[in-house]
Amino acid sequence: MTLPVLADLRSDTVTTPTPAMREAMAQAPVGDDVYGEDPTVNALQAEVARLTGHEAGLFMPSGTMTNQVAIALHTRRGEEVICAEGSHIYEWELGMMATFSGVVPRFVPAPLGVPAPEDVRVAVRRSVHQSPSGVIVLENTHNKAGGTIIPPEVLHQIRAVATKEGLPFHLDGARVYNAAVALGVELHEITGMFDTVSVCLSKGLGAPVGSVLTGSAAAMKQAHRYRKMMGGGMRQAGVLAAAALVALREGPARLAEDHRRAHVLAEALVNAGFEVNLAAVQTNIVYAAVPGAAGRAAAWAQRGVLANALGPESVRFVLHHQIDDEALDRALEVLTA
Amino acid sequence: MTLPVLADLRSDTVTTPTPAMREAMAQAPVGDDVYGEDPTVNALQAEVARLTGHEAGLFMPSGTMTNQVAIALHTRRGEEVICAEGSHIYEWELGMMATFSGVVPRFVPAPLGVPAPEDVRVAVRRSVHQSPSGVIVLENTHNKAGGTIIPPEVLHQIRAVATKEGLPFHLDGARVYNAAVALGVELHEITGMFDTVSVCLSKGLGAPVGSVLTGSAAAMKQAHRYRKMMGGGMRQAGVLAAAALVALREGPARLAEDHRRAHVLAEALVNAGFEVNLAAVQTNIVYAAVPGAAGRAAAWAQRGVLANALGPESVRFVLHHQIDDEALDRALEVLTA
Amino acid sequence: MTLPVLADLRSDTVTTPTPAMREAMAQAPVGDDVYGEDPTVNALQAEVARLTGHEAGLFMPSGTMTNQVAIALHTRRGEEVICAEGSHIYEWELGMMATFSGVVPRFVPAPLGVPAPEDVRVAVRRSVHQSPSGVIVLENTHNKAGGTIIPPEVLHQIRAVATKEGLPFHLDGARVYNAAVALGVELHEITGMFDTVSVCLSKGLGAPVGSVLTGSAAAMKQAHRYRKMMGGGMRQAGVLAAAALVALREGPARLAEDHRRAHVLAEALVNAGFEVNLAAVQTNIVYAAVPGAAGRAAAWAQRGVLANALGPESVRFVLHHQIDDEALDRALEVLTA
Amino acid sequence: MTLPVLADLRSDTVTTPTPAMREAMAQAPVGDDVYGEDPTVNALQAEVARLTGHEAGLFMPSGTMTNQVAIALHTRRGEEVICAEGSHIYEWELGMMATFSGVVPRFVPAPLGVPAPEDVRVAVRRSVHQSPSGVIVLENTHNKAGGTIIPPEVLHQIRAVATKEGLPFHLDGARVYNAAVALGVELHEITGMFDTVSVCLSKGLGAPVGSVLTGSAAAMKQAHRYRKMMGGGMRQAGVLAAAALVALREGPARLAEDHRRAHVLAEALVNAGFEVNLAAVQTNIVYAAVPGAAGRAAAWAQRGVLANALGPESVRFVLHHQIDDEALDRALEVLTA
Repeated sequence: MTLPVLADLRSDTVTTPTPAMREAMAQAPVGDDVYGEDPTVNALQAEVARLTGHEAGLFMPSGTMTNQVAIALHTRRGEEVICAEGSHIYEWELGMMATFSGVVPRFVPAPLGVPAPEDVRVAVRRSVHQSPSGVIVLENTHNKAGGTIIPPEVLHQIRAVATKEGLPFHLDGARVYNAAVALGVELHEITGMFDTVSVCLSKGLGAPVGSVLTGSAAAMKQAHRYRKMMGGGMRQAGVLAAAALVALREGPARLAEDHRRAHVLAEALVNAGFEVNLAAVQTNIVYAAVPGAAGRAAAWAQRGVLANALGPESVRFVLHHQIDDEALDRALEVLTA
Repeated sequence: MTLPVLADLRSDTVTTPTPAMREAMAQAPVGDDVYGEDPTVNALQAEVARLTGHEAGLFMPSGTMTNQVAIALHTRRGEEVICAEGSHIYEWELGMMATFSGVVPRFVPAPLGVPAPEDVRVAVRRSVHQSPSGVIVLENTHNKAGGTIIPPEVLHQIRAVATKEGLPFHLDGARVYNAAVALGVELHEITGMFDTVSVCLSKGLGAPVGSVLTGSAAAMKQAHRYRKMMGGGMRQAGVLAAAALVALREGPARLAEDHRRAHVLAEALVNAGFEVNLAAVQTNIVYAAVPGAAGRAAAWAQRGVLANALGPESVRFVLHHQIDDEALDRALEVLTA
Repeated sequence: MTLPVLADLRSDTVTTPTPAMREAMAQAPVGDDVYGEDPTVNALQAEVARLTGHEAGLFMPSGTMTNQVAIALHTRRGEEVICAEGSHIYEWELGMMATFSGVVPRFVPAPLGVPAPEDVRVAVRRSVHQSPSGVIVLENTHNKAGGTIIPPEVLHQIRAVATKEGLPFHLDGARVYNAAVALGVELHEITGMFDTVSVCLSKGLGAPVGSVLTGSAAAMKQAHRYRKMMGGGMRQAGVLAAAALVALREGPARLAEDHRRAHVLAEALVNAGFEVNLAAVQTNIVYAAVPGAAGRAAAWAQRGVLANALGPESVRFVLHHQIDDEALDRALEVLTA
Repeated sequence: MTLPVLADLRSDTVTTPTPAMREAMAQAPVGDDVYGEDPTVNALQAEVARLTGHEAGLFMPSGTMTNQVAIALHTRRGEEVICAEGSHIYEWELGMMATFSGVVPRFVPAPLGVPAPEDVRVAVRRSVHQSPSGVIVLENTHNKAGGTIIPPEVLHQIRAVATKEGLPFHLDGARVYNAAVALGVELHEITGMFDTVSVCLSKGLGAPVGSVLTGSAAAMKQAHRYRKMMGGGMRQAGVLAAAALVALREGPARLAEDHRRAHVLAEALVNAGFEVNLAAVQTNIVYAAVPGAAGRAAAWAQRGVLANALGPESVRFVLHHQIDDEALDRALEVLTA
């Protein structure tokens, strides 16, 4: 990648720390978090727990780890993880649910990323000849479906299924802030009904590294052990937590702008002749049907606009706070040429 | 189950040993198979290897074990097992692929149990961000699709995909003899192109216990270790192998009768007003749409006819050598009443 | 092995079924045990449960499976299995505790196979920085220590440690009948204080295949799932269970003879100049120090006497019901030549 | 911990970042390391690879992760990890070798942390009845033995065993810089003979977070997948790598001072009547026999001196660059009072 990059639309994970984050990292009081003594990590954990409506939180280096620790928490070996088709925990977490927790996925259809509560109920297994269900996992917003939002009433209905079936309920909230902002609700209104929630700080919120798992204090104590097993026990992690605290302050307000620009991008792509399911453009992600996706993405990259070909005929564009209106204009010039 | 059973159509696993099998068990020379010294086990392994067109075989207590040992042989942790939707290795083997081998399934659509070779190819994963593919597994006949047969030309085409992608190729041949008989081919014609094949002796063939895994001598040596890990190292297993040898002699010839009776049953059910996909009735299994399946199955059981409700509106009937024409007539009286 | 075998002293697993067992196998009423309908299996399970002083039992193809299912029952991933040095569950079960259950061993010193209760207590881990203890496992008699017996008072003291620490307590009772016979107690007196017990039927008792796990009805229900995962669900397993029921009737009475002959063998070996720890000769196993063990064992095998070289300078001899006084005399002629 | 801390001797992990590290973190060029685009991470990986004498490196959040990824790289499920008694990979990595890799430890005696090459050779397993050996792992310096050094000639002899047996060879080099400094050799002289090496940057070297695994480029490519599975894929990890690069420049020179002060501390403890094995005081760690260790450590903590009670009668003291002569003097006043 030697050419100047005009716009990196591959993911909202490519942002670099803001000056305020750099400053916070340079100043943060830190301690050995393996002993639980890093004050900045402790502050971050408490803050994310408060925001999600939970009792406690645990900081980890990635959303893969927070999700997989949650799956380990909620399951015993040989059980099934009920989740939507195309879930990140299966598609992009490399079989960790099997290797670490010894569990398999059980998929539920999810048009626009939203599973029907009745389909979740039907997916529950109780026969002695089958793997018992271990946990229900949702992803909100749903990445592979296009950053789509699960309506709060569906969350409550699936919560009711989980309660009735005696199953724990986990949220992969890598982009749950996008959902809250787009819905205009407080975060806890769409996270509080889960037993555990994984919140990523390094996606739209813009922190360099880290995710927080939240839940009950007892669950977080057990999570601590699994985090250590996976190698997520970090020493003076406060340097990362400091940036994450800035991201929590600065980030949410900016997400509405990302969403607005995603619509601008989607419409421009449609006008340029690409097929885009506009109903799926609900937050900061746009999928376009692009014949010869890999080749076209490479050609755009040559002209400084980066996007991910995620299928033979599919390209994903992700908006984030380092794509301002000017960058978007430049990108559109290339993409619609 | 206190009432007399007129016909047990739940599965072809419910058969009891024939007099010839009982006699063979009583006479079999045996030894300690953990030391590889049971002559009857050795004879059975060699015979099944010969029949499938492979170099060596390994006797195990169940088809779940032969399949799961094969998956362990062919994969490393974190990889994907490419298989048809509804495969037995996923639906009825209780997450063992995850717990033991640390791998997850990657499903391919399979109308009537037959995956399209192109869909298998598309399911192969190579990106560093995703689980790599580890093995391709087919199931022939396909139990959940209704005992359906994969045409030999499809087997060859998927073999070509496996070869091109450098992936091993395993057959769950729990009912592969049904396929061979229905196609009128020698077993090796539909098994020889696989790297490993699991053949069940306790389904349509009628042996009381056991499956044999076949493949190269080197693969079977490695399989020996996995068998031992799973607890499949049995001592004087020749008593079981003796019955299995009888099943291999007696069993195949009887399968055509089971297939004929399955058609009789299917048509009688259709005439009685049940919906049956006749295109799927290819061997010894019949699925019928039955509203209130569990209740209806229980009512039939009260009248001495056993069948498995395998969904809210679906009942499975399986023919086997202990359902003769008379037993079928009696069953039809109850089922079509 | 082309020469006639005068005496096979490699293990008590090499015995072949008695005529009474053969007869029982030929006559046994059977059913599909995967559906729980094999009456002979059900009878065996109930009988072993009664003998061990437990509520329920579950039949499996090997002692490796009963032990490993028990470990799975009692642990969660990442925990430790407290066991004596040289335990069969570690030395001869090929890492299954790690691969299936995700747990590691924590060894306790065990002179003559008997761990000190205080050492067991010290081995318990509770720190958040370490693997928590999951289960305490004893082996009685202890194979690698020479078939040695754990005194009942030690069993009760370790039971007290387990209770105080809130840990489950499993017995690998592959040869627990040898201990009961040598101690002159009823089986349940040395098994009833455990939460689960694995009893092998194919060692000194002489059945061709099988072990039974016993414990509470709730534990056995959970064990059923793990058995199925490992591939231990067998169909008409009653043919094996029938032989095992005979072994339970015939076997225990014969064990005292094996023990007597083990002493005869041990003393003859000492008189012939081999070093034997006579204090360890408590049941049916004799370990002798033999310089160049592998070569010497091969030479004896040439003369028809089989024994296992289990170390560079160690040979194990095991007595069983198919080594009568005459066979022992012939063996001693060769061994002491 | 409300009292002012005079000296924190619990571990060399408790150091806080130096001003130069803070500055480097604030200035570091960063990118998305999940895409391999973080220039600072890439620079760190190349530098550690160069220093250890290897081809490539991979940055991870902890030494537990670098070790466990290496074990996954080198083993297949069910194998054994040959390692010294008391190894960190077993004692403090919470069963991850079992849960993730499905492997068990095989311990070799290690007086003063140094295994005899012959004992390593004897630990290799090849029988089909046992778990095969998968990898040999050493730890240098050996934490639990007291920060002891494995002599370079022993490393070469064990390398020869590994080569002869065809086994991979991994070094847990959490404190390998202490060994190099104490021996007065270049790092690669004691790391180059390994297939993979884990180097911690957050112990004596003083970086806030991180370890690097080094080895061949092919091994690191495979390691990348396991790192992602464990959740070690971090986004703008360059902020951590920047501090680690400073630690590599600043740290080694300071270690000799830590070693000198460890001797001062050890002798003062001996003079105060504590038992210390002075032969084991080779780098920056001192173990003292302290009756009622936990209570005594708590009492010292009340007076501002922190140390870890790691057994009922054992306390560990660790020197690091934030314990200067003055801090040591203050600590000694308390400890020898």
